Amino acid sequence: MTDPISQHIHWQQGKISRTDRERLIQQKGATLWFTGLSGSGKSTIAIALEKVLYDRKILSYRLDGDNVRLGINKNLGFSAEDRAENIRRIGEITKLFADCGAISLSSFISPYRHDRNNVRALHEESDISFIEVFVDCSLAVAESRDPKGLYKKARGGKIKNFTGIDDPYEPPENPEIHLKTDQMTLEQELNTIVSYLEQQGIID
Amino acid sequence: MTDPISQHIHWQQGKISRTDRERLIQQKGATLWFTGLSGSGKSTIAIALEKVLYDRKILSYRLDGDNVRLGINKNLGFSAEDRAENIRRIGEITKLFADCGAISLSSFISPYRHDRNNVRALHEESDISFIEVFVDCSLAVAESRDPKGLYKKARGGKIKNFTGIDDPYEPPENPEIHLKTDQMTLEQELNTIVSYLEQQGIID
Repeated sequence: MTDPISQHIHWQQGKISRTDRERLIQQKGATLWFTGLSGSGKSTIAIALEKVLYDRKILSYRLDGDNVRLGINKNLGFSAEDRAENIRRIGEITKLFADCGAISLSSFISPYRHDRNNVRALHEESDISFIEVFVDCSLAVAESRDPKGLYKKARGGKIKNFTGIDDPYEPPENPEIHLKTDQMTLEQELNTIVSYLEQQGIID
Repeated sequence: MTDPISQHIHWQQGKISRTDRERLIQQKGATLWFTGLSGSGKSTIAIALEKVLYDRKILSYRLDGDNVRLGINKNLGFSAEDRAENIRRIGEITKLFADCGAISLSSFISPYRHDRNNVRALHEESDISFIEVFVDCSLAVAESRDPKGLYKKARGGKIKNFTGIDDPYEPPENPEIHLKTDQMTLEQELNTIVSYLEQQGIID
């Protein structure tokens, strides 16, 4: 009987690196960071992109309110301090997924430039691609969509510190990708992202 | 010119699931949770196992002090409360990696049974395999190894709340895998884990 372990172990040679993992799953790790107002279309785009990548046999992983705000960050609120800690943690996690070799898709309002830039710096320190996607939609259009009824509650004073109403949104100054979602179709938005990823050599 | 996106997008059909991702990378997601005293061999085993899995073309991702305690959990100390929060966050992250389809390897002392059982429950809620690996080593042997000189500092009172010295270690009651690392070779330990993963159908 062969012993596959003793044939293959070379653990003295050290740890498996990101490059090793990327070679194994034949793709490159990167973070796409979707930022924009509530109702701007961040999650819609991330969900659709996940499917596009899947059909191209590319492993991606999506972080959003469902699996983060209700999970690891369930002990955080919406004060400026908690928002900063929320984004800091997400930034660390999305970096780990990119380090794993996946295309990590993070969609959070992430209204403060400083917090987003910290996430960018974290990636740059580790030489991991960070692609900021500005999901740009006028407040009027986002509010008219109001998919979760949150703007209505914020206008009625039932939600405090709501981005765009009584809390600021600071738009990215130099996003890698700028999507004007009140003027583009979802297909156009996806094409823009996919073209960028191709041009940068992140996907084939 | 063909338009791959409009040909392939079926975003109305919903999100990509864990099963989809597992199909894509042809493996099953699971968490291996290594618990034991400082110096018991947790990281040594996890690092070696990562290589064994890699040689079998299996994507794994390793969480340890280097990429967690210095990253997402850098704002936590070693009080009982902070230890609990440390393990809670790691539990959420390791679950996300298993949900992504990877074999997630977490090696942390994680001395409290209650905290580990919370991580187990988190996985069970999502029907994700959680494999507790008790890296069992007598305190005498772990202390004699003292690879980071931490026991010496703890004995000298320079580190407080050190597991095994002035803070308790609560051994697992029913770990899926029990490794007596003061009596086994690394090859034996790896064989034990790989055999378990094969028997459970987690790896081929």
